[in-house]
Amino acid sequence: LSGAILAVGGAEDKSEKSKILKRFVQAAGGRKARIAIVAAASSIPDKRAASYEEVFRRLGAAEAFPVPMANRREARSPVLAEALGSSSGVFLTGGDQSRLVSILAGSEILHALFQLHRRGGAIAGTSAAASAFSARMIAGGGSGLTLRPDAVTLRNGLGLLPELIIDQHFSQRERMGRLLCAVAREPACLGVGLDEDTGIFCHPDGEIEVIGSGHVFVIAAASESAEPGRRRPFRISGISVDVLSHGERFASSRREGLSA
Amino acid sequence: LSGAILAVGGAEDKSEKSKILKRFVQAAGGRKARIAIVAAASSIPDKRAASYEEVFRRLGAAEAFPVPMANRREARSPVLAEALGSSSGVFLTGGDQSRLVSILAGSEILHALFQLHRRGGAIAGTSAAASAFSARMIAGGGSGLTLRPDAVTLRNGLGLLPELIIDQHFSQRERMGRLLCAVAREPACLGVGLDEDTGIFCHPDGEIEVIGSGHVFVIAAASESAEPGRRRPFRISGISVDVLSHGERFASSRREGLSA
Repeated sequence: LSGAILAVGGAEDKSEKSKILKRFVQAAGGRKARIAIVAAASSIPDKRAASYEEVFRRLGAAEAFPVPMANRREARSPVLAEALGSSSGVFLTGGDQSRLVSILAGSEILHALFQLHRRGGAIAGTSAAASAFSARMIAGGGSGLTLRPDAVTLRNGLGLLPELIIDQHFSQRERMGRLLCAVAREPACLGVGLDEDTGIFCHPDGEIEVIGSGHVFVIAAASESAEPGRRRPFRISGISVDVLSHGERFASSRREGLSA
Repeated sequence: LSGAILAVGGAEDKSEKSKILKRFVQAAGGRKARIAIVAAASSIPDKRAASYEEVFRRLGAAEAFPVPMANRREARSPVLAEALGSSSGVFLTGGDQSRLVSILAGSEILHALFQLHRRGGAIAGTSAAASAFSARMIAGGGSGLTLRPDAVTLRNGLGLLPELIIDQHFSQRERMGRLLCAVAREPACLGVGLDEDTGIFCHPDGEIEVIGSGHVFVIAAASESAEPGRRRPFRISGISVDVLSHGERFASSRREGLSA
């Protein structure tokens, strides 16, 4: 039985009231949780990891420890991979998703992360790390609604949530345009735009639950006839949009919103 | 046989190359066009009308003349209504759509406008006037994707295009959120977001053609099950989005994009 995966849109509440981080600690075992923190996406990984260490302890985890990892050499370290594997949950911080993927791709650490997931461990990522959970990952793009075929850059991600193309800071940074373009180019994937302090809790059965204070935008190519979005004049057709709030659920396979 | 209606997202090209304004002059009779200009939406109507007068003459219309109208008294003037009725096409400028509607509602001028349309005359409106063509009109709202039930204010419009809820300056002012909310509240209407220098040419048979340099966002409640968008937590479901460019067509009744 694989574990839960939590993808968060960034800027999550870190106070005692935090719905999202508390939910992660709970999924990782609550008072017994041993949380490994991976800050490889960040250009200041030690500082970033230390701040989450303090947060998770404050939220009641038994342990929270950084897995120091600033380059590919460290990501290949069996010792660090074993440390990660000894946790009951892994939290990946924000930063830059391309940096995170370039450090983790093909590494012992990534292997250990997938193994932990398969053993039922909880995995969470915020901001850049949430994007990196995609198999086809949004590596960059413009803001706003101005749509062009090059409005979004897609690269290979970590593939923890391969059916989803995840974007974050979604309303706050006006990312509807680039997510529409991403889904037009990858119509087999479901686009998921996460607002700040908002996330999706992916249950092992494929059901996805919205948590947090903002919205989750779910963007689906309604049919196989979706245009690839590279034509000129540029067009996007056959896209459906749902906007969901805390407590609502949808399924990644059926691509339909379900009421809470 | 009723005439064409052209709704423009504002900031349309006014040079010799103007695709949109040229198309309007052509629909109004080309070299024989007699274009009446209504600038009631504007707080500086005389100045606004004068600038379009010059543009339409430069684009080859036989005549272009303002129908001076800054208040409800003037809108009730039979003389002005007759002047408007003598035209082959009416152009309504931008400004404020609530101002335009409050001046024109129930007036002789509006009656003459509908009559002209039924006789085959062309009618165009840009920016605020395009919004006012709706029956349920977007009177105001926020920008961006932050969605709340009060993200958009709907009032009664002029009703020239009663099936459509038109928004303008769409990408430029980040209006996806308010148009999604408007369609969630009025699921029987098709939401149409017009970029600047972009418009829809509504043929009398109901087919709608995109013209101009930007995009037109067509937002439809996919089914009658669309949520009213007033619940808490706020949600919008069952919405489809199409993004179309110059030359592409769709139908207001079938609510489906058609390839050019």
